[in-house]
Amino acid sequence: MKIASLEIPRLREAYSNGLSPVEMVEEVLQRCAAYPDRAVWISRASREQLLARAQWLIEQPGGVENLPLYGIPFAVKDNIDCLGFATTAACPAYAYQPDSDAFVVAKLLAAGAILIGKTNLDQFATGLVGTRSPHGAPRCVFDADYVSGGSSSGSAVAVGAGLVSFALGTDTAGSGRVPAAFNNLVGVKPTKGLVSTSGVVPACRSLDCVTVFAASCGEADLVRGIMQGEDDSDPYSRAMHERSLPLERFRFGYLPQDQREFFGDDEAAALYAASISALQALGGEGVEIDYRPFQQSAELLYSGPWVAERAAAIGDFLAEHGADMDPTVRTIVEGATRISGVEAFKGEYRLRELAKICNRQWQQMDVMLLPTAPTIYRVEDVAANPIELNSRLGTYTNFVNLLDCSAVAVPAGFRASNGLPFGVTLIAPAFCDSDLARLADRLHRAESASLQVGGTEYPLADESKMKENLADELIQLAVVGAHLSGQPLNHQLTRRGARLQATTRTAGDYRLYALAGTKPAKPGLIRDPDFSGAGLEVEVWALTAEAFGEFTAEVPAPLGIGSLILADGSTVKGFICEPWAIAAAEEITHLGGWRNYLTAQQG
Amino acid sequence: MKIASLEIPRLREAYSNGLSPVEMVEEVLQRCAAYPDRAVWISRASREQLLARAQWLIEQPGGVENLPLYGIPFAVKDNIDCLGFATTAACPAYAYQPDSDAFVVAKLLAAGAILIGKTNLDQFATGLVGTRSPHGAPRCVFDADYVSGGSSSGSAVAVGAGLVSFALGTDTAGSGRVPAAFNNLVGVKPTKGLVSTSGVVPACRSLDCVTVFAASCGEADLVRGIMQGEDDSDPYSRAMHERSLPLERFRFGYLPQDQREFFGDDEAAALYAASISALQALGGEGVEIDYRPFQQSAELLYSGPWVAERAAAIGDFLAEHGADMDPTVRTIVEGATRISGVEAFKGEYRLRELAKICNRQWQQMDVMLLPTAPTIYRVEDVAANPIELNSRLGTYTNFVNLLDCSAVAVPAGFRASNGLPFGVTLIAPAFCDSDLARLADRLHRAESASLQVGGTEYPLADESKMKENLADELIQLAVVGAHLSGQPLNHQLTRRGARLQATTRTAGDYRLYALAGTKPAKPGLIRDPDFSGAGLEVEVWALTAEAFGEFTAEVPAPLGIGSLILADGSTVKGFICEPWAIAAAEEITHLGGWRNYLTAQQG
Repeated sequence: MKIASLEIPRLREAYSNGLSPVEMVEEVLQRCAAYPDRAVWISRASREQLLARAQWLIEQPGGVENLPLYGIPFAVKDNIDCLGFATTAACPAYAYQPDSDAFVVAKLLAAGAILIGKTNLDQFATGLVGTRSPHGAPRCVFDADYVSGGSSSGSAVAVGAGLVSFALGTDTAGSGRVPAAFNNLVGVKPTKGLVSTSGVVPACRSLDCVTVFAASCGEADLVRGIMQGEDDSDPYSRAMHERSLPLERFRFGYLPQDQREFFGDDEAAALYAASISALQALGGEGVEIDYRPFQQSAELLYSGPWVAERAAAIGDFLAEHGADMDPTVRTIVEGATRISGVEAFKGEYRLRELAKICNRQWQQMDVMLLPTAPTIYRVEDVAANPIELNSRLGTYTNFVNLLDCSAVAVPAGFRASNGLPFGVTLIAPAFCDSDLARLADRLHRAESASLQVGGTEYPLADESKMKENLADELIQLAVVGAHLSGQPLNHQLTRRGARLQATTRTAGDYRLYALAGTKPAKPGLIRDPDFSGAGLEVEVWALTAEAFGEFTAEVPAPLGIGSLILADGSTVKGFICEPWAIAAAEEITHLGGWRNYLTAQQG
Repeated sequence: MKIASLEIPRLREAYSNGLSPVEMVEEVLQRCAAYPDRAVWISRASREQLLARAQWLIEQPGGVENLPLYGIPFAVKDNIDCLGFATTAACPAYAYQPDSDAFVVAKLLAAGAILIGKTNLDQFATGLVGTRSPHGAPRCVFDADYVSGGSSSGSAVAVGAGLVSFALGTDTAGSGRVPAAFNNLVGVKPTKGLVSTSGVVPACRSLDCVTVFAASCGEADLVRGIMQGEDDSDPYSRAMHERSLPLERFRFGYLPQDQREFFGDDEAAALYAASISALQALGGEGVEIDYRPFQQSAELLYSGPWVAERAAAIGDFLAEHGADMDPTVRTIVEGATRISGVEAFKGEYRLRELAKICNRQWQQMDVMLLPTAPTIYRVEDVAANPIELNSRLGTYTNFVNLLDCSAVAVPAGFRASNGLPFGVTLIAPAFCDSDLARLADRLHRAESASLQVGGTEYPLADESKMKENLADELIQLAVVGAHLSGQPLNHQLTRRGARLQATTRTAGDYRLYALAGTKPAKPGLIRDPDFSGAGLEVEVWALTAEAFGEFTAEVPAPLGIGSLILADGSTVKGFICEPWAIAAAEEITHLGGWRNYLTAQQG
C-alpha cells in the first residue's frame, strides 16, 4: 500500500484499510535514509527495534480501533527520556541512560505510537536558532541556508520533512513555536503543568513545557490530550480545569503599528497584517492592545533572574565540564550563576506586577494574535551574531510561559521573495488549550497557501478532524427562548464564556408555550410523550460546570434546568417548566420556535 | 453608659441603645492610660484626633445601621501604613510618613472603625517572640514574666487587655497566630492574597498576610470580610473563590504521638490532646497524619531561601543603617544576602515537591488541627537564647503560608500550673476562610475555660454572631428525596463539599409524588398554587457554583432544578419535575415527605 502524507487521520484510515505497521516502518526508514540533512537526529531506533514494535502492534487485540495512535511514527527531542536511548540534551558529555520513559513518552507508546528516534536541539534547550549543537544545525525544510529554528530544531524538521507524523519538543521561551513557524507547522504549547515534564532535562523548571509539532491543529491537540494528565512525580503538574473560548464571535488582540517589530522583514509584516484580516473574516473583533507589559515580562526571562534556573539545572555539570559545552550556551549559563537570591525574588515581584498590568489587556480580548517570530535568519548570519539574532527570534514568544498562557503556533503563508514560511501564534490564558486549538485550526485553514504538510508536497487532509475532547468537560445546554443568540438574556451565556455548539431542534414530542407576565418574555417548553410534532428550535451551548451552575442559579420560576431530548435522539441539559405556569399560557408549538413567535407578534 | 467588654456585637448593641462614640473614646483613652505595660504602643492617636473621629461618626447619616464597624476601636501593627502616623516597623531609623492609609486600613475606617494607635512588633516583623524591639517587649496579658508572642506583639496585647475590640497583625511565619495563643485570643490568618498588603512593610512579600486578632471568630471573620477585596496595586492580591468545608461531619488531621513536640511542656501536650477530643465531640473524625512533609516545608522559610525575601525588603536599609537595627534581626537579614539565585529557585522546586506530598495528606482530611505554639517562654529565657527559642515557637506555624493555607488560631484552655493560655489552630486549604472560621468558632466555644475576652474578666458574648457572608457566594439548594441525608444519592452533595444548612419544609402549595420506575426511587415535587397543604420535608444544602453545576448536570429526567419556595416564604434552588411523569405517579403529599413514604413502604 502506497504511503504519502503521514497525517494521523490518513494513517488511521490506511490502517483500517489494511496497512501493516511493518510497511509503515519500512517507509519511515526509507524516508529517514533519503533525507539529506544529517543533523536532524541524534539517535534513531534500529530496523530490528522498529520491526519488533510493528509486530507488537499487529498482536494488539482491537488494533487501530483500540489505540488512538496505532502505528503513528513520532520523534522525540533528545532532552526527553526514552528507554533504550541515551538522553544527551545535545551535549555528549552529559549523556545518560534513562531508567524509564518520560511520563509523556510512556503515554504515547501506550497509545500505540512508534518511536522513530531522538532529535537534535540547541544544547540544553538553550536557544531559538537550532545552531547551538555539536551535531550541526538542522536546516529549514524550505531552504538549507536558513535555520530551522530552535531549540526543538530536529523535531520540527522531522515533521516538516514528512519523516514522522508528529514530534515532541519542549518550550521555555518559544522552542516549541519558533521552529513550527520556520517549517510551516503547527506547534501546540500547552498550559504549563498540564503535560508532565517528568523525565525531561530541565531548562527553567518552573517554566518548561512539553510541546507537539504536527501538520495540523487537530493532530497536535489530539497528541496533547493523550499526553495530558496529573503526575505526582512532577511538582509543577496541574490538573486540567478546562476553560472555553467564544469561537464564533470573539475579540482578539493584535499589535498596534508602532509596536510591530520585524527587523526589516517587510514581507513578514505584511503576512502578519494579512493574518489579522483573516481572523476578522472568521468572526473576530480585532482590538489593538498595548504589548509593552508583555514585552517587559519577556525581558525577565534572559535579562532577569529566570536565567538562574538554567544554572540550577546544569550549573554543577558546567562547573566540571564547561569545556565540553557549546560556547554560547556556556556563556549564558555562566552568567546565570551570578544572580543573587534577592534578585530572584525581586524578579518574581516584578513579574507579578506585570501580570496584573497584562490582565488589564486581557480584559479587552479573548485571545491574542502575534507573529510567532519576527523574521528568519541564515545559518551564517546566526554564526556571526549568535546571541543578538537568537534573542530577536523570541520577541513574541518569551513572555508566554512566564505569564501562564496557552499558545498554538500556526502557518500563515509564505514570503514571495524567498518562499520561506511565516507563522502566527494564538495565545490565551491558561487552560484554554482545547478551544484555542479549535480557533487556531480555523485560522490555519483560512490561509490556503499554508495547507500542505510542512515542507512536503502533501496537501493537508481536508477535514479538520479536531478531537472533540471538550465534550467530557463542558456541559451542553439547550436554550429555547430569551437566551437564544441576539435575545435579551443571551449575555448570561456569553459573559460566562459559553460557546455556541449548534442550532437544532428538539425531539418531536415537545410543546412550546408563551408564558404570561414574564419579563423579558419567555417561553415554557413541555414534553408530552403523547404528542408528535416537528420539534422546536433550540441552540445548544457548551459551558463549564461553574458557569452552568451560576447560570442555573439565575433562572427564575417557573423555569428550571432539566434534561431535553434533541431531534437526533441525544439528551442534553435544557429548559423545563413547572406545570402550574402553563394553565394561563398560550400554546405556540405550531410556530416552530420562539423567534418565529416574536416575529409573528411584531407582524 | 457603662462600657465593659469591647466585643463588636456588644458595642453595636450599645450604640443602638444610645452609646456615643465620644464615651467610647474616653473609655479607651482611660484604659490605655491605666494599662501598665508601656511597650504595647509605638504611637497613639491624640485625644483631639479621637474626639474628631467620634464627631465624624456622630454626623454620619444612618450611623450604626449603615456602618458595620461604627465606633469600634482598633489598633494597627506599626508595619501597616496609617495616614497621620509614622510607619516605623519598630525601627526608628526606618520611620517614614505614609502618603495614604494601607488598603485594609482605608476599608476599616470607611466601615466606621476608630483607629486608636500603632502597636509594637518584632522589628520588621522578624520574630515570633515580641522581644525584638527597641520599644521593649510587650508582655503576655496573663503574666508579665512571659512573652506576648510576636511579631504582632502589641496588637495581641491591645486586644487581650481589652484596650480595643480588634487589632491588625501581619503573618509570614506565624506572627498573627502565636500571639493569639499567648493572650487567649482568636487569630484569623486569611488565605494569601485575599487581603491586600498594599501599604504594608514587607517581610517576605510572596508570603505576607494581614491578620486579625479578636476575642471571637465571628468578630475576626467579620473584619476579614470587610478588609477583603482584590487590589490592583498589590501584585499578590487574589479574588476570593470561596470553598466550603463540611461543618457537621468532617475529617480532621492531627499529629501522631511520635510527631508531637512540646519541648517538655506536658500541660500543653495534654491541652492539645483535649482539643482533639473536643473536635471529635463536635462531629469530627480524627485522622492521624504524617506531619513530616509540612515540617520540611516549614524549614524552607528560615533555613532555606525565603529568608532572601527579607533581604529583598530591607537589604538596602541594612547596608546603610545596620547599626540602627535590632542585633538579632540584623543577623538574620545579613545571612539572607548570601542566598544565591540558584538556591532560591532550588528552594522553590523543593517546596513544589513537598506541596505534592502534603496534598496526599490533605486527601485524608478536610482541616488540620495543630497546636498554635508548642510552649511559651519567659522574656528572660528568650534573651538568653533568642534565635533557638524563637524558632521553636514556629514549629506548627511556619509552613502555612508557604503551602497556601488558611488558618484560624483559637484559645484552647489554660495550664493549671501557671494559668497561662494554650491555643490550637485549624488549618485548611486556600479560600476555605469563611467555613474555617465557623468551625473554629465551634471549637473555641467547646472550651468553656477560654470563653473570656483575652486576659480580661469579661465573659465572651453568648452568641457566636458569625457573619453569614457565605450566603452571597454559595448557592442554596433544597433536596426532597434520594439526596436527603442518609439517602442513596446524598453522596452527590457531600463529595462536592456541600454543607447542610437546614432541615425545613416547603411552602404549603406543593404536592409530592412517588415517581414510577425510578432507580433509586425518587419523588417528584409539583407546585400547585390552588392547593393548600402542610408543606413537605426538605433539606437545604449550600454549595459552590461549580459543585451546583456538576450536581445539576447529573440530575436525570423527569427531574430538574428550578426555584422552590420554603415554608418561611424564601426562595431557594430546588427540585422540580416535568409534568408528563406525574400521570403515572402516586401522590404521597399526605405523608409530609419522602422519608415518611419510605418508612410507610417498609411497614
